Amino acid sequence: MRLDAGCEMSLSADAPTPLIAMLRPRSNRVQWVVSETYQLEPFVPVVEYVDVFGNLCQRLVAPQGSFRIRVEAKLETASEIAVQRDAPLTPIAELPDNVLQFLLPSRYCPADKLEQKAREVAGKAAPGYAQVEAIRGWIHEHFEYKYGVIDASGGALETLEAGAGVCRDFSHVGLSLCRSLRIPARMVVGWLHKLDPMDMHAWFEAFVGGRWYTFDATQAEPRGGRVAVAYGRDAADVALFSEYGPVKVKKMDVWVNEVSA
Amino acid sequence: MRLDAGCEMSLSADAPTPLIAMLRPRSNRVQWVVSETYQLEPFVPVVEYVDVFGNLCQRLVAPQGSFRIRVEAKLETASEIAVQRDAPLTPIAELPDNVLQFLLPSRYCPADKLEQKAREVAGKAAPGYAQVEAIRGWIHEHFEYKYGVIDASGGALETLEAGAGVCRDFSHVGLSLCRSLRIPARMVVGWLHKLDPMDMHAWFEAFVGGRWYTFDATQAEPRGGRVAVAYGRDAADVALFSEYGPVKVKKMDVWVNEVSA
Amino acid sequence: MRLDAGCEMSLSADAPTPLIAMLRPRSNRVQWVVSETYQLEPFVPVVEYVDVFGNLCQRLVAPQGSFRIRVEAKLETASEIAVQRDAPLTPIAELPDNVLQFLLPSRYCPADKLEQKAREVAGKAAPGYAQVEAIRGWIHEHFEYKYGVIDASGGALETLEAGAGVCRDFSHVGLSLCRSLRIPARMVVGWLHKLDPMDMHAWFEAFVGGRWYTFDATQAEPRGGRVAVAYGRDAADVALFSEYGPVKVKKMDVWVNEVSA
Amino acid sequence: MRLDAGCEMSLSADAPTPLIAMLRPRSNRVQWVVSETYQLEPFVPVVEYVDVFGNLCQRLVAPQGSFRIRVEAKLETASEIAVQRDAPLTPIAELPDNVLQFLLPSRYCPADKLEQKAREVAGKAAPGYAQVEAIRGWIHEHFEYKYGVIDASGGALETLEAGAGVCRDFSHVGLSLCRSLRIPARMVVGWLHKLDPMDMHAWFEAFVGGRWYTFDATQAEPRGGRVAVAYGRDAADVALFSEYGPVKVKKMDVWVNEVSA
Repeated sequence: MRLDAGCEMSLSADAPTPLIAMLRPRSNRVQWVVSETYQLEPFVPVVEYVDVFGNLCQRLVAPQGSFRIRVEAKLETASEIAVQRDAPLTPIAELPDNVLQFLLPSRYCPADKLEQKAREVAGKAAPGYAQVEAIRGWIHEHFEYKYGVIDASGGALETLEAGAGVCRDFSHVGLSLCRSLRIPARMVVGWLHKLDPMDMHAWFEAFVGGRWYTFDATQAEPRGGRVAVAYGRDAADVALFSEYGPVKVKKMDVWVNEVSA
Repeated sequence: MRLDAGCEMSLSADAPTPLIAMLRPRSNRVQWVVSETYQLEPFVPVVEYVDVFGNLCQRLVAPQGSFRIRVEAKLETASEIAVQRDAPLTPIAELPDNVLQFLLPSRYCPADKLEQKAREVAGKAAPGYAQVEAIRGWIHEHFEYKYGVIDASGGALETLEAGAGVCRDFSHVGLSLCRSLRIPARMVVGWLHKLDPMDMHAWFEAFVGGRWYTFDATQAEPRGGRVAVAYGRDAADVALFSEYGPVKVKKMDVWVNEVSA
Repeated sequence: MRLDAGCEMSLSADAPTPLIAMLRPRSNRVQWVVSETYQLEPFVPVVEYVDVFGNLCQRLVAPQGSFRIRVEAKLETASEIAVQRDAPLTPIAELPDNVLQFLLPSRYCPADKLEQKAREVAGKAAPGYAQVEAIRGWIHEHFEYKYGVIDASGGALETLEAGAGVCRDFSHVGLSLCRSLRIPARMVVGWLHKLDPMDMHAWFEAFVGGRWYTFDATQAEPRGGRVAVAYGRDAADVALFSEYGPVKVKKMDVWVNEVSA
Repeated sequence: MRLDAGCEMSLSADAPTPLIAMLRPRSNRVQWVVSETYQLEPFVPVVEYVDVFGNLCQRLVAPQGSFRIRVEAKLETASEIAVQRDAPLTPIAELPDNVLQFLLPSRYCPADKLEQKAREVAGKAAPGYAQVEAIRGWIHEHFEYKYGVIDASGGALETLEAGAGVCRDFSHVGLSLCRSLRIPARMVVGWLHKLDPMDMHAWFEAFVGGRWYTFDATQAEPRGGRVAVAYGRDAADVALFSEYGPVKVKKMDVWVNEVSA
């Protein structure tokens, strides 16, 4: 399906502030960027580089005062995500080299502390996709989607304790439990068609049956219409922007609309 | 300066034909892509990857019949290129690791055969920028810009012998002579503002004084307003597209216009 | 100076167990591997790959029963580490692209929670090397070097609370406080000449004044004679080996001896 | 099988001369370095980096006078190479991204000029492995193995014309003809057990049936016992060393012996 998706952020800085943004979606094996625009207002010098996960990162210094970043893209993406309930666990010895890093614990996903919990939640499922789906379903069922419960420093442990959080937090729980079961899992931030209320979104992918599959604990059913903007181990790797100084987001709009190809 | 640049190619294929295109300019340290669109008509599945030089490459299968690729980008780029006539030769031992590959001979640039020629042309110039400029100036002065002299299989040797060629061929001579003098040199294909007649363009960069500088043997004076689409060792690495089957270019339009930021 | 350094691990596995080891030091800009041997007993198939930090990683399946890995290397390394007390803070905007990742919080280094602490510890020092040295000195002075206080799941917060730990834990505190001050910092595991008692070691590097400097909070004075085996964000990235099954270390010997070149 | 292989080069330089060497074999999917030593006499500062093909490259400045490089490795490698006569052509659209570069013409392999020749030689063979084997066999049968015919600047065209050459030249012909048939092919330099007379060796690999297979036009039969030291597009990428100044090889010894594991 073809989507027109984007976000616009109005920032305010007390002083010139270095920013590293990850806001440019990239063509790859699962999505194709037909067109895009990346506007800075006022325009300031900006350079782009690729991080270790393959994300396009923009480096700039936000000027003092008001500053606006607006990114919009038309993309071709799958209208339905792949579902393969019998995809087996990929044995560690058969994982591709570059997938191995997604087995490790990370800032918000202390998988090393959650083995028992993972067994509780997914213990009866067949190793592989079914385990991940058990985890996803359990989070969806048992956690309350609620803003303001988990702050920026909270990860999977805090979310498990609170029993509530938002897409980022649901993902951290899913990522942690998967890795506890030796299933590589990575975080995705991006846009989801018909998300309600519309906002930036986060979900996760798990590597089973020899490939990555998409899982979203905030949704009742598998849903396509996704645009990946950045991949990483957890929220620490995929911040929309990391600011190094006194900058505030005054307003942020996000939109995802289907358009004709 | 802000440029709106692009190209449109009308192709015709006798059968479905795999293509690998390098047509998407990329934001980096010297140019910023404000917006771009990459259209395929009819639309076919396409994936993008990054080659060893950092170029964005598009893989697709052109359908039988007529096929059109249209790429357009608005970019911020320097209106003047850096010129530093006293930039010294960077000693081999101080070259960055990833620059070393641009010392090697390549398909169209048999630098190993041209040491004597390079000494003749640039022998009196100071090692570094001045040598490259001597080479560039010599090509500009002594070679005739003429289509149809050098075919797709012709490189620096054929161009030297013919004393004529086009931007691609002038670049091959420049690249070869630089490398013969142990100056790393790489080819760039892209767009040049006010090129006359307008077309895709090729030029080269040489690494002296600790950085890459731009050189264009087709031009009388240093000129900015450049958009790099791909970098490589020579034309073999940076083909607009490589086709693996019976495909023909029926028509190709290129445009580069200044627009307001 | 030339060192002969190595380690020998005797493992015991209840069942064939996939292992990913990081035990092969690599030649790079700061050390040169003159010779090395990497023995597996019994010998089993093993493949090597390079992770995102550039570390050499060995993948193998430890057989059921006893298994021994013995790595030994002769290396040329600096007998004294660089010390530059007035090296300034490198502004965010001037950091190399691949250094930026070392500003982020990580599994054992929740730098996002430690800004205040970092200001307390280093607040009076000049931005840059002096801040890192203030942090390093403070850890050395205020923390007790003691085994068994912090377990494998403990990071900088637990170490700060306990006021004690070992080289790994001291590093996590140092890494976290540096990153809180916007100084990129990375963990190093390896070997240190004359470490007493001899063991595998961990320390950290901070990027100030445009380059990486070595800091070791376990030592009273700057000391050279170091061999880096792996680099990463924290202990999660640089485990000597990650095991995916029931394997135990029965015994581990480490040695570092000066030899003549 | 386990091999002890190595080479020793005695060089002589009229002045300090920068060298870039590719002499350190690397553990990967097809060979495992059990132990190795890399000696420089006299010892000079040296740094190592990885090139775009994954080769370990050593940068150093050879001192004025006599200089010796001695590399020796014990490796585990396959005693027989894989042979799969019915492995089919891998369609362009299914080639892995990083294999595509090995379809391009290169310095010594102007594949773009040899389509007709490739069809003559392999036209009747089934697309894939059988074509490559037809090419390999044809070279083995029709070319004379002879030193001194093709010089360092000669490639596949010169070798085809002369009907003679050495391992490097036979490889260039094989590489070129494969690429002409849209079969990715890469050069390997390294050591071959029982090569007679013993020397550094070169052969090529072709990508068919979804993987790389080894081919050696200098040998009558498929032979294992190979140690890869470097991979590249052709000899330009994999020189044992590239020298940037007046250095001569006075003597070179190579040895490959089977040892017990």
